[in-house]
Amino acid sequence: EDAGKLTENMSDPYSTDPKRHPVLHPASVKPFNAETPPFLLVQQFITPNELFYVRNHLPVPKVDPETYELEIEIEGKNKTLSLTLDELKKLPRHTITATIMCAGNRRSEMTKVKPVKGLSWGAAAVGNATWTGVRLRDVLALAGVDEDAAFKHVQFEGLDFDPTGKTYGASIPFWKAASKRGDVILAFEMNGVPIPRDHGFPVRVIVPGTVGARNVKWLARIIVSEKESDSHWQQNDYKGFSPSTDWDTVDFTKSPAIQELPVISAICQPSEGQTVQTDDGHILVKGYAWSGGGQKIVRVDVTLDEGDTWHVANLDHQDTAEPPQHWSWTLWSARIPVKPGTKTVQIWAKAVDSCYNTQPESFKNIWNLRGVLSNAYHRVTVKLQ
Amino acid sequence: EDAGKLTENMSDPYSTDPKRHPVLHPASVKPFNAETPPFLLVQQFITPNELFYVRNHLPVPKVDPETYELEIEIEGKNKTLSLTLDELKKLPRHTITATIMCAGNRRSEMTKVKPVKGLSWGAAAVGNATWTGVRLRDVLALAGVDEDAAFKHVQFEGLDFDPTGKTYGASIPFWKAASKRGDVILAFEMNGVPIPRDHGFPVRVIVPGTVGARNVKWLARIIVSEKESDSHWQQNDYKGFSPSTDWDTVDFTKSPAIQELPVISAICQPSEGQTVQTDDGHILVKGYAWSGGGQKIVRVDVTLDEGDTWHVANLDHQDTAEPPQHWSWTLWSARIPVKPGTKTVQIWAKAVDSCYNTQPESFKNIWNLRGVLSNAYHRVTVKLQ
Ligand SMILES: [Mo]
Ligand SMILES: [Mo]
Repeated sequence: EDAGKLTENMSDPYSTDPKRHPVLHPASVKPFNAETPPFLLVQQFITPNELFYVRNHLPVPKVDPETYELEIEIEGKNKTLSLTLDELKKLPRHTITATIMCAGNRRSEMTKVKPVKGLSWGAAAVGNATWTGVRLRDVLALAGVDEDAAFKHVQFEGLDFDPTGKTYGASIPFWKAASKRGDVILAFEMNGVPIPRDHGFPVRVIVPGTVGARNVKWLARIIVSEKESDSHWQQNDYKGFSPSTDWDTVDFTKSPAIQELPVISAICQPSEGQTVQTDDGHILVKGYAWSGGGQKIVRVDVTLDEGDTWHVANLDHQDTAEPPQHWSWTLWSARIPVKPGTKTVQIWAKAVDSCYNTQPESFKNIWNLRGVLSNAYHRVTVKLQ
Repeated sequence: EDAGKLTENMSDPYSTDPKRHPVLHPASVKPFNAETPPFLLVQQFITPNELFYVRNHLPVPKVDPETYELEIEIEGKNKTLSLTLDELKKLPRHTITATIMCAGNRRSEMTKVKPVKGLSWGAAAVGNATWTGVRLRDVLALAGVDEDAAFKHVQFEGLDFDPTGKTYGASIPFWKAASKRGDVILAFEMNGVPIPRDHGFPVRVIVPGTVGARNVKWLARIIVSEKESDSHWQQNDYKGFSPSTDWDTVDFTKSPAIQELPVISAICQPSEGQTVQTDDGHILVKGYAWSGGGQKIVRVDVTLDEGDTWHVANLDHQDTAEPPQHWSWTLWSARIPVKPGTKTVQIWAKAVDSCYNTQPESFKNIWNLRGVLSNAYHRVTVKLQ
């Protein structure tokens, strides 16, 4: 390597980022953020690692698994527990299949109402994978903390850091971290192989049913605390607000950090503007639906006539786990008749979860300045042939 | 008493029903079903017993507390545990404040889209009370069942019965019944006094965060089981369906029994059609908001211009309990400016819960043949003076 190359690398903290699959559609390059092409997303229940959406806030750290250590700190205790990767892997293993979704998934639709701040995600900042690791509650128990302890939050710090040296951070409620039903794991495998660098190698916390932002990658430190993480992403980002709140009036202390996500669905096939071949007078519509908090999708309704007629979709792929521990999305399809001679149709989809929560109809009434929680009915207009 | 009176009583199983407060607004008389006047509902955080909505499916049983016995049956075990009221009261006591809501609350608004089957409830088939009793999980433990047991459901049978002798019944998921976090109690006190007859004297199961129909009154029997209750109300009622499902196509086996309820809110003051005095160019709007599953209300938005401007309501009364164990409703108010000269306004309200689930906008798209889960935006039109 010549000096020029070395200097270039030093000035660009992203130069050591991993290679990505060319089919991923970037929302930003540095940091790298990219989503799966929607039609590929609904091809399989388990999203392949190389097609899984990537959401990085900072450069991808290069972590040596031989020297990696996870620290567990309990507020008010002097001693910090430290675990190497080998020590972590010796604990009882636990595998869950869980969907991870970005808080900003489908933001690009909300933006059409009025501009928002954030990456312009389509409907595929989401994926479903099998994660293997150890239960966070088992690690907390090693550190002397059981689920009846009086703590309120468990904070996570990543190994990724900004130019000032500040690391990525987030926290989740203590009950979620410490309870068996919470199913939170410190994962070292994604779909049966070591977690790829873009997804948190060597250890990522998987907080099923909870927004991606709390599923901290390249996990360095766990802090059991009375307080939430004081990180930017916990305190001044990833929160919902009223449509009437703008950047002049927003007070981030007034809204809770997003944790469990609301019910959502999206049409992944056909795509907006596509020309669709009808089959014996029908069109085929495919998509996903999911709800946070371990809720299961119980129904997906699809309409071609603005809700005058709703068609109940087939739930083609769904995990058998019962709520409130149902962590995976549901893939659905509907074959819907169209009137002969129809040139254009707008397809709407909405999902219902096991609490019978359903999606809001329009973006206008859920608009928020950060463009998060963008779960209004998905509407896709297609041409028919 | 003369013979005529006796005969009358014999032919009318409702003749021994208790007296009710005259201010309750009946949806049906036999069985007695009645709701609180909405403006009274939001006067206090704890609904007084005599104003609490009543939802009876059958005549109110007359239960002698001296001879009352609660039976606990574990499927696959021969022995049934039996507890007298005194024995039950000797177990550790637990008090929770929880909102109970009828699945059909606000049905009368959904009916306007298209007729549905069911009692024509307004927005006040809901109340918030303090319930004291013993934890169901403690009673299950006495019967030898702890939360890690492999059962799936806990069934309840009431002492109320139909003309064929069939009792009211319901069931809840085992995890909810057996977990500490579920907070299910066998209550014998409501707001500090023995539970009134209309509300389940001497013992009612309180399943906080879960639809009223599973909060079985006059509790006679608990059955820990692999299966749901086979009662009419569990199997062929209290389920949600697509707007396209009608009585010819409905298949009750295809939808899950309603358990935890979705987020809802209602405007209780002013009422539909009321003439409102403006105060310094403002009107005052008051209501409640609540979400099932132990979720907390994090925001209520109110609009007078169909969503062009949303006003964030004050959350005047809210329990301090954290989700997912926040069982009480939130009372809210908003003082909203009106343009001078305005003669009529339509007020809309919508709530957001701690999962950031929010209400659907219109009844058209959530309509269902039983008129349950009627949680679209509440819209109230008033005249201004
Ligand atoms: Mo995210
Ligand atoms: Mo009900």
